[in-house]
Amino acid sequence: MKKSFGAKTLAYPAPLFCVGTYDAQDRPNIMAAAWAGICCSKPPSLAVSLRPATYSHGAILARRAFTVSIPSSAYMAHADYAGMVSGETENKFETLGLTPEKGGFVDAPYVAEFSLVIECALTHSHSIGLHTQFIGEILDVKVDETCLGEDGMPDIRKVDPVIFAPVTRGYYAVGEYLGQAFSAGKTLKK
Amino acid sequence: MKKSFGAKTLAYPAPLFCVGTYDAQDRPNIMAAAWAGICCSKPPSLAVSLRPATYSHGAILARRAFTVSIPSSAYMAHADYAGMVSGETENKFETLGLTPEKGGFVDAPYVAEFSLVIECALTHSHSIGLHTQFIGEILDVKVDETCLGEDGMPDIRKVDPVIFAPVTRGYYAVGEYLGQAFSAGKTLKK
Repeated sequence: MKKSFGAKTLAYPAPLFCVGTYDAQDRPNIMAAAWAGICCSKPPSLAVSLRPATYSHGAILARRAFTVSIPSSAYMAHADYAGMVSGETENKFETLGLTPEKGGFVDAPYVAEFSLVIECALTHSHSIGLHTQFIGEILDVKVDETCLGEDGMPDIRKVDPVIFAPVTRGYYAVGEYLGQAFSAGKTLKK
Repeated sequence: MKKSFGAKTLAYPAPLFCVGTYDAQDRPNIMAAAWAGICCSKPPSLAVSLRPATYSHGAILARRAFTVSIPSSAYMAHADYAGMVSGETENKFETLGLTPEKGGFVDAPYVAEFSLVIECALTHSHSIGLHTQFIGEILDVKVDETCLGEDGMPDIRKVDPVIFAPVTRGYYAVGEYLGQAFSAGKTLKK
């Protein structure tokens, strides 16, 4: 039997992204965002939704650029803090002791200490309701060399991203390897 | 040091969703989608991107409705299969031995065996490039009673959703509990 929970923002997994921007005074800012994900393969694009009330919202529109820095679980509290305080009143990079590194492709800073960072050029913005959805074309993804597998490719277990569970609002780690996409299903072919 | 991987659809975590629709002959269909996520709190909304070439793309536009069924890890191969075969030539529910349950709120079927299901009414569609992004207003979320915690709320560890790692294309389970959102960051307040 299933229990109905009504019209809730309840889907698993949600990410824990830190969105990086410069404000009009060139101060770097980050904020946490979980309403986000990849949204197109060509051009490679990512969607992230922010409320117009956030300081980052105006910054993205002004510079037409943002980054996404993905914290490892060791930086979970840092990312969480970045979702609790406004960049209008506080330089969160300073408070958190994090390093804003200027993107090589877009006019926005990323978190040098985080293991995977994505540079995005704003291509669309859609007002959905309480949130505006920003679509960014991904111009580059950088991964810490310590987070690569023996094959030289990114290893999600080493990147160690944080999974957010909406409604109950817990953070979780990535668990065991289960199988390979576009392969696991072949066993069910008739 | 960070290694650049260029313009890749690389962000963690990505979900493994099964999108449910009816076609013009009222046949139920599901397909796997990973370019997706929550995109707005009010109205509660979810975004999922599909290529126009998919059979589900036309079905969503025709009925202006879709569901998202989230497989537990036990159904990983079923969901993977649903991403490999077109509903135009095959009834995947039949092949996979899954039960299409008509949504109570929208004109689309969900997978009765999957532990968390979401009913969505199409509100926007945006052509981004290779993918069209469909935005659905979430009208109801249902969770198997066996996946609730002692507090009666959904427990992500019991729902046991699958995490997709783009580029290397692995599937992973949800791991250990790390902490609580809007709380973990308080320890860093100065």
